[in-house]
Amino acid sequence: MSLNALGLAEAAAGIRDGRLGSAELVADCLKRIDEVDRDIEAWAFLDRDYAMRQAEAADDHRKQGKATGPLHGVPVGIKDIFDTGDMPTEFGSSLWAGRTPRRDAMAVARLRAAGAVILGKTVTTEYAYFNPGKTRNPHNPDHTPGGSSSGSAAAVAALMVPGAIGSQTNGSVIRPAAFCGVVGFKPTHGLIPRGGALLLSRALDHVGVFARSVDDVALLAQTLAGFDEEDPDTRPLACPPFVEMAASEPPLSPRFAFVRSPAWKHAENVTTEAFAELVEALGEQISEVEIGPSFDRAIDMHRTVMEVEMAHNLHRDFEQGGESLSKVLRALIERGRTVPAVEYTRALAGSTSLNTALDGVFDEYDAILTPAAPGPAPRGLDSTGNPAFCSIWTYLGTPAMTLPLLQSESGLPIGVQLVGRRGNDARLLRTANWLVKTLGKRGRGRATPAKTSAKTNARRVKTRSDR
Amino acid sequence: MSLNALGLAEAAAGIRDGRLGSAELVADCLKRIDEVDRDIEAWAFLDRDYAMRQAEAADDHRKQGKATGPLHGVPVGIKDIFDTGDMPTEFGSSLWAGRTPRRDAMAVARLRAAGAVILGKTVTTEYAYFNPGKTRNPHNPDHTPGGSSSGSAAAVAALMVPGAIGSQTNGSVIRPAAFCGVVGFKPTHGLIPRGGALLLSRALDHVGVFARSVDDVALLAQTLAGFDEEDPDTRPLACPPFVEMAASEPPLSPRFAFVRSPAWKHAENVTTEAFAELVEALGEQISEVEIGPSFDRAIDMHRTVMEVEMAHNLHRDFEQGGESLSKVLRALIERGRTVPAVEYTRALAGSTSLNTALDGVFDEYDAILTPAAPGPAPRGLDSTGNPAFCSIWTYLGTPAMTLPLLQSESGLPIGVQLVGRRGNDARLLRTANWLVKTLGKRGRGRATPAKTSAKTNARRVKTRSDR
Repeated sequence: MSLNALGLAEAAAGIRDGRLGSAELVADCLKRIDEVDRDIEAWAFLDRDYAMRQAEAADDHRKQGKATGPLHGVPVGIKDIFDTGDMPTEFGSSLWAGRTPRRDAMAVARLRAAGAVILGKTVTTEYAYFNPGKTRNPHNPDHTPGGSSSGSAAAVAALMVPGAIGSQTNGSVIRPAAFCGVVGFKPTHGLIPRGGALLLSRALDHVGVFARSVDDVALLAQTLAGFDEEDPDTRPLACPPFVEMAASEPPLSPRFAFVRSPAWKHAENVTTEAFAELVEALGEQISEVEIGPSFDRAIDMHRTVMEVEMAHNLHRDFEQGGESLSKVLRALIERGRTVPAVEYTRALAGSTSLNTALDGVFDEYDAILTPAAPGPAPRGLDSTGNPAFCSIWTYLGTPAMTLPLLQSESGLPIGVQLVGRRGNDARLLRTANWLVKTLGKRGRGRATPAKTSAKTNARRVKTRSDR
Repeated sequence: MSLNALGLAEAAAGIRDGRLGSAELVADCLKRIDEVDRDIEAWAFLDRDYAMRQAEAADDHRKQGKATGPLHGVPVGIKDIFDTGDMPTEFGSSLWAGRTPRRDAMAVARLRAAGAVILGKTVTTEYAYFNPGKTRNPHNPDHTPGGSSSGSAAAVAALMVPGAIGSQTNGSVIRPAAFCGVVGFKPTHGLIPRGGALLLSRALDHVGVFARSVDDVALLAQTLAGFDEEDPDTRPLACPPFVEMAASEPPLSPRFAFVRSPAWKHAENVTTEAFAELVEALGEQISEVEIGPSFDRAIDMHRTVMEVEMAHNLHRDFEQGGESLSKVLRALIERGRTVPAVEYTRALAGSTSLNTALDGVFDEYDAILTPAAPGPAPRGLDSTGNPAFCSIWTYLGTPAMTLPLLQSESGLPIGVQLVGRRGNDARLLRTANWLVKTLGKRGRGRATPAKTSAKTNARRVKTRSDR
């Protein structure tokens, strides 16, 4: 196996033990990029020499016996909406071409403090909204990789880098992770500080992470989590031991609530069939739960908050950028400007009662299980797909993950989304690991319908397929 | 001196030492109420027997040698927008006549935990907004006491109770305290939790306190301050030792910034003359500071936030209450409903840069000195007066106090407002005490113009008058 296929934790352990050099690892990642990125175009900025210099510095540091962080020498990709003091940060907009910030975003600073090599900046849609960037789906270049964290998801899926960070204001972590077949994790709102990242919506913006296993997203999230006085939604609490929790056995087999959610009307046949199969496979561990009509308004309330806060935060770009902004973005801002304030305040306030209602679900179940998207990545590069299955969980600020457990007949990944109780990210990670392992074990002896085959995609680990 | 004229700290010390019984003290307060309240009408609810029973229980508790809190046996008044589990809470609205909550607001709970006797509920304007309650100014019943915390200010001024709590969303602590001639203190936004108080505006609502000395408001604020998870704007920080700081000598004589502020155009002649005199009296300790045109918009931004958030929070009352709501309140809500969301978000966001600009002032000066109101309490009971001198400091969330240092020719009090840096409430209290003492000392040897005489009003301590 070439080194670029190593997982994040595996690579970090190898470097820590001296079995592996950061320079070898980064060189293999760059070689992989040279081989495959022409068709994928996951990178907005990549300076190969600079990446190698960071890796060599990491190796020197370790050889001198100095203390190393949990990601020492491990390369990561950074969505191009996070400020980097040493690389351009252009927000996927021609308006900001060549912009180089003076300092790192807090998330980038924490990765560097943990010893990571900042490999480069990954492609984002325009302002992390709907207008696509250049990236293509690694499973089929005629299909969208999803967005807005398109490059982060595609680079991790195509084994160019073992982990990356992104952001989600609607479906921008879960959807591209699902379409590209990697593990995507959007922790509880406020868990990872957003200082120095493009601000679209204080209420909705989340930092999220991409890797190829649950343990690896746990490691990234643990590195990034924690209070920052620049982000008013972070809380001064001790960071939970995500890595340890993710790897631990649940005291009881977890129970799942299968929630169709108001987005279900968008589900494609392949999804409804795959989920029927999944529910059957989980047997007593899963029950269908109807979350009730009050959730029907959540998608609308999400949209109201997003339109208003983006119109607010992109006000100057809109006023000065004119035609440099895409039509779809300008239309969003124009809609945001017409919303009455009391409709906005009502939408902002609406999440409280819905989260209280969800508490009842999480008192009984470890996680909600629901699709990550209507289906696999749609054909075409003009759109990044429908985020409806993500909007509610973004609006509610709950932790959400997608796991690459299913696959369409044509070989495109289909994500299974797990949603946990706010603040209970560690338990969600543990539950996710249980699900991956359990489906793997059971799958080996079971038949699956022709239309779907449940195998985790990027890692090519067989689970429920292989008749 | 009858016991009802004792200050809060003095009374608490007497009870703690066993020199004074809570029952005697409360009996004297009730006697005072019987004597003077017919003309003032400061109380929305008062159960004399229940007050005496609380006092007797406090005395029994102490006699049994049990631990006592810092306000043990001391009566306080509660503005009728704070929930009390044992008394009605009617928000000054006929719509809520007879409403008795099931539990105490956090501020009330903290007073009880400190041992205070909850004497009764004080009159508020309708929903703590502009439509006046029945209370009259203790200095002249033809004049307004100010609002919205009308009863709290009047009761403390008229020696009915040594301390009281109120709230400020625009000028509702500082203005009535100034008009009634007591010390009013509105700490930094978020210092005192608001759970269980009528919610008008998360961004603007502050809990504030009334007493007859700086030391006494410090004691009240210290009792009330501190994190509460029900109030998202409180912070989990240790409560500063307000009492100790207020009583301490500043290491250097404080410096004051005399700020006319955009409200200055509302100042009456008596105010402009009194402040000219005050600035002269403070000599080198004060400089006039121009805070610049960016602050001109602060009053408008305050209004935008208040209109929108009150329209949001009083939505149901407006829909169901109809004509039971005053015209002035309905007009406010109707205006709030027409504001575009982006205008509201801009107004909400505008305070950050203004607070940053103020940091420059507070790097040089201990406090801003500015009027508390355009003049003394206006004649008439149809309006509670103009809050323009308070709106900016409410909007910015800075700590603000009013000190009863001046007086009009006709004997009505005129407040001197001090404003401090956000989070630096303790220093503001120390500075305020310095100002009270210094003007007292200097005043004894100085002439003052005929039109104003600077004496602290309710306490009848001569300062700068008395030629």
